[in-house]
Amino acid sequence: MSGEDASGTHPRPAMTPADHAELALTLEVASTPKPGNVDRRRDHDDLRFEHFLAGAVGSRPGLKLAEGDAPIGDAFERAVHGMSQQGGGNTQFGCLLLLVPLVRGAATDRLSPDGLRDVTAATTVDDAAAFYRAFESVDVAVSDPPADASALDVRRGADAVPALRDRGLTLADVMGLSADRDGNAAEWTSGFERTFDAADRVLDDDGPVTDRLARLFVDLLADRPDTLVAVEHGAERAEEVRREAAAIDGLDDAEELAERFLDAGINPGTTADLVAATAFVALERGVPV
Amino acid sequence: MSGEDASGTHPRPAMTPADHAELALTLEVASTPKPGNVDRRRDHDDLRFEHFLAGAVGSRPGLKLAEGDAPIGDAFERAVHGMSQQGGGNTQFGCLLLLVPLVRGAATDRLSPDGLRDVTAATTVDDAAAFYRAFESVDVAVSDPPADASALDVRRGADAVPALRDRGLTLADVMGLSADRDGNAAEWTSGFERTFDAADRVLDDDGPVTDRLARLFVDLLADRPDTLVAVEHGAERAEEVRREAAAIDGLDDAEELAERFLDAGINPGTTADLVAATAFVALERGVPV
Repeated sequence: MSGEDASGTHPRPAMTPADHAELALTLEVASTPKPGNVDRRRDHDDLRFEHFLAGAVGSRPGLKLAEGDAPIGDAFERAVHGMSQQGGGNTQFGCLLLLVPLVRGAATDRLSPDGLRDVTAATTVDDAAAFYRAFESVDVAVSDPPADASALDVRRGADAVPALRDRGLTLADVMGLSADRDGNAAEWTSGFERTFDAADRVLDDDGPVTDRLARLFVDLLADRPDTLVAVEHGAERAEEVRREAAAIDGLDDAEELAERFLDAGINPGTTADLVAATAFVALERGVPV
Repeated sequence: MSGEDASGTHPRPAMTPADHAELALTLEVASTPKPGNVDRRRDHDDLRFEHFLAGAVGSRPGLKLAEGDAPIGDAFERAVHGMSQQGGGNTQFGCLLLLVPLVRGAATDRLSPDGLRDVTAATTVDDAAAFYRAFESVDVAVSDPPADASALDVRRGADAVPALRDRGLTLADVMGLSADRDGNAAEWTSGFERTFDAADRVLDDDGPVTDRLARLFVDLLADRPDTLVAVEHGAERAEEVRREAAAIDGLDDAEELAERFLDAGINPGTTADLVAATAFVALERGVPV
């Protein structure tokens, strides 16, 4: 996605990391079928495709902060606020939680597992406070915290900030507290290894990028239980969903599963977040669109 | 689309005109059915939905120039070049030709027919030269120029610039040369009256914005022959297409027409350009997403 200006009057750079992140958000929702999620062919009742488009454009100022040298937490808080300025509610909170550090990694030549470990390790208590404040923009479905950590329940929003400061927890520390039950937090604590592995698979696949991402979605869903499904329907149902995804063969089969999950209110949102993160890495590495 | 930051640490502005223009480009292609066009439910063989998403993100640097004080022609040339950096070819040349002056109008408090007349009247010969250079980024379907104006054929790209300078033609003058046979040029020479009228209709309509835009598409297509269809299939076929659009009743009927036009290679692209321009004005005026 770069080129020379025939007239020589304007430099014409390739897309920047913030551009790729915004495009990744739209490619994620355009990829179909992604069983249980809003996609190009399916809306939920009050959460429609266009809400995701507006969320992607709205998140851009935060993504630009991530591309610069603003604190990661501020970039995330700004991205979430901008994302939330549409009528569908929470469209891309989890996607942005993954994309903000990935954009920072790409902008600083550290788009690798080791590089992302550096990015997350550098987060601060202020970043954690901004992350908590971001929950005040939208309703996010999360699991209950451990009994000894209720002061740190993200649903407390800014009210939890004094407890964060008392304990000196950075954003990476906060992610570590829920990595065992939240797929996005697990990416934060593992150098985004699942995302990078998935990006390699997308680059090795062929056909339109949205078909590659749809195939990836089913593969990821078959690989591990979706943690949003576990929050909303319990661990047992999340494991059943994983098995249903593992049993299907090809995108045609996935169409049928998409109808079934939609009817049952099964929304594997964490897997969709991973698809957006993967799309970003794949775009940075040159997957054609 | 604005709000106050609960924490008070970040100003959180509404979307800017460039944001709304980018969102308008994605809402246009997301609106379905738009008979004959790529939309959320239909691709063409080599021109797919995701090419439009990448075109929208890619056009952003040019839209930002339009929001600032760069010459209109430079903003357009930059937007078209960025739009063209995807595998589908020309996705949104005509949309951008309408959006660039509309963004300038919105950014300078002149988003009205009189304001747009001011914007276009202020264009220069340099703007016209940049417009011609933009044709070097993509293949655009256009009609033949009048016999006495072959030196000004846009397909000559930068080679036509000496003739432009000899004749002292501004970009508004160039638009005036084809306003009788090009729907986008007609907007330029009329203060975008059709666009503003259409935006009023969208604001008065109800339901999801993408449904409003799909209804508008059919109404506009029924109202006047699409000038891209006229270029590609002749004036008689364009009038038939207009009559077919006028005969349908509601979006369900439009689905059937969409299949028929797709099979016949009928692509009412100028009408789609008007829908994108209308979406922009409607977003600036507060249509909910």
